[in-house]
Amino acid sequence: MPDGTPRAILLSIGTEILLGEIVDTNAAHLAAKLAGLGVDLRTVRQLPDDRAAIAAAFAEARDAADLVVATGGLGPTHDDLTREGLAAALGEELAPDPALESELRQRFAAYGPMPASNLRQALRVPSAEALPNPIGSAPGWWVDRDGSVVVLLPGVPSEMRRMWSDQVVPRLEAHFALSPLHVRTVKTFGLGESAVGEALGELLGRPGDGISAGIYARDDGVHLRFSTRADPARLAFPLAQAVRLLGDHVYGTDEETLAKVALHGLAQHGCGSLASVESGTAGALLAILSECQAPDIAYVGGLLVPDRSVAAAAPTADAVVRLDLKSQDDHGRSRVEVAIEGGRVSLPLTRTRIHGSGPQRQRRAAFAAMDTVRRAFG
Amino acid sequence: MPDGTPRAILLSIGTEILLGEIVDTNAAHLAAKLAGLGVDLRTVRQLPDDRAAIAAAFAEARDAADLVVATGGLGPTHDDLTREGLAAALGEELAPDPALESELRQRFAAYGPMPASNLRQALRVPSAEALPNPIGSAPGWWVDRDGSVVVLLPGVPSEMRRMWSDQVVPRLEAHFALSPLHVRTVKTFGLGESAVGEALGELLGRPGDGISAGIYARDDGVHLRFSTRADPARLAFPLAQAVRLLGDHVYGTDEETLAKVALHGLAQHGCGSLASVESGTAGALLAILSECQAPDIAYVGGLLVPDRSVAAAAPTADAVVRLDLKSQDDHGRSRVEVAIEGGRVSLPLTRTRIHGSGPQRQRRAAFAAMDTVRRAFG
Repeated sequence: MPDGTPRAILLSIGTEILLGEIVDTNAAHLAAKLAGLGVDLRTVRQLPDDRAAIAAAFAEARDAADLVVATGGLGPTHDDLTREGLAAALGEELAPDPALESELRQRFAAYGPMPASNLRQALRVPSAEALPNPIGSAPGWWVDRDGSVVVLLPGVPSEMRRMWSDQVVPRLEAHFALSPLHVRTVKTFGLGESAVGEALGELLGRPGDGISAGIYARDDGVHLRFSTRADPARLAFPLAQAVRLLGDHVYGTDEETLAKVALHGLAQHGCGSLASVESGTAGALLAILSECQAPDIAYVGGLLVPDRSVAAAAPTADAVVRLDLKSQDDHGRSRVEVAIEGGRVSLPLTRTRIHGSGPQRQRRAAFAAMDTVRRAFG
Repeated sequence: MPDGTPRAILLSIGTEILLGEIVDTNAAHLAAKLAGLGVDLRTVRQLPDDRAAIAAAFAEARDAADLVVATGGLGPTHDDLTREGLAAALGEELAPDPALESELRQRFAAYGPMPASNLRQALRVPSAEALPNPIGSAPGWWVDRDGSVVVLLPGVPSEMRRMWSDQVVPRLEAHFALSPLHVRTVKTFGLGESAVGEALGELLGRPGDGISAGIYARDDGVHLRFSTRADPARLAFPLAQAVRLLGDHVYGTDEETLAKVALHGLAQHGCGSLASVESGTAGALLAILSECQAPDIAYVGGLLVPDRSVAAAAPTADAVVRLDLKSQDDHGRSRVEVAIEGGRVSLPLTRTRIHGSGPQRQRRAAFAAMDTVRRAFG
């Protein structure tokens, strides 16, 4: 079993990715999974369906990494060239695998005759072990040769995700000595990235032995993230320090969300139900509220209106949150107005400002509204 | 001006990408823009905030491509290292640019003192021309040296997109001899990808001289895309053929959207105003309707309720579209129920089915509702 943190490279293969026709969500999914397993992902490369480019990328990646994971290009058509590219990089010949061929034929038996092109999916190089794909026609490959492992997975996200957890993870755990990454997150709202950095001072550069710290700007505020491959108990000290230094800008840690914290605050003030009315946001607030699982308060519905002048009533509730997002000024800022009306609690009109444009601007306005509620009732 | 199709490489920089914490939508956006401009994007690489890795990637990319576009790592914090990495690859020194520094100070004047860390954003190498960022603190760079162009843009999508269109595109058009790609799109709803392929027959494989054809499954249906770098008039014939072969599954071409076509149909039937009520969708329908620019009908608001039992009234309108998305069955399908009530038009409850999960499932339900309206009133 190789020692130390294994280094990985991901290859996302498909001309449609390089034409911008699809967003490569597979890479983000696998990156998160690798981080959690304690694999150090060094780079992701997106490549076209070009045999020479794929072969060169595999050769280079096998030299540089302990683990190479490739998705896409395992389909039956002439532009699915991942098998050919890896075979060239390994200097091995592709040959039909009778077992794979019979599985493919069985798979198609229910639908009618198998198109001849699908036979390409039964090709294998000698050093590849086939990884079964229970929900698609493309088997994966596991190749362990010359001190590096190469994994091929189909590009269809549902097939890729299932084969990753069922087939690849157990093999990785058996093959590498993995030290999973432990992560703690402090979530803030109301401060910019650099203001968070200044408030933290030395803690950011020296969070402790074997601990990394990073700051990330998100629509729901600036997140501060501590991680370690050592004992997770070590993260408690920098976490507590950060919470102290950032004061009431901190709304939660780890899995806590702004909406959950805000709704919990309203529930603590005697509200059993909540409704919302918003304008200018394309429904960003009601989308967030309807997806928030708050055990102690019921979200009974939300209304989107073009502007305040429209006469329409929100569903009856103990508290009705009202959000108006005004148009952007010349500096790219927008005013957000938040108020709560209702039988149980009320909040006078409160103004705040956000940056951004498009859907991001609308989501930020919704989070700013939740932050206003959190500060008033949290 | 260099001859031929320029070759490009994209670098997406940020440890958060390699940890799977964000999906790299910037790469897909820029890839589509480059394809439209007639630039041949050869590869995309995602890199961590690691100075040596960034420097090596820039050096390699400048050797291999005519154009290198990098996003991310231009922030003010210690882990924003894109400037440093490119400076190392170029063998140039970073120095403060007094003009950039004074712009930054002006930008912050409205908010209070500028954090010292932001001064890093005023650093520049001698060969870099600064690209103004009107809505953020990170200026971009344009570096034209040794026969290759390097462009640095911030990772914040709204800033990146605006600087791309305002600053980068005009410079690319002046610098390279570009042959833009002309694209025509036929949009369908109600047929799967392979059914569209079968209906098109030979047209898909042989759409005409110098023309490419592709089929793409989207939340708003299956799109058929014809493209050419030659005379765009050539695309009219395959487009008309496809519209004929796909019949009433075609709801529009090019910039037409399902919502626009549906709303136009309602307007043609005498509706001057529209409202919506939905459940199970997190507001997907009202989000689409509120963003749809329909000149001849006013969208007066939408209501999201947890289920039909909630007593709440939609805003008064000539037509009220009602959408209920039911839970997923064992085969991953969900039932969608659509009806229209109102003074001017009505549509009895109509059932349809969609596939998918998560936010995609909700958006598909909203598009299925628009398709039902389009078929009834279009």
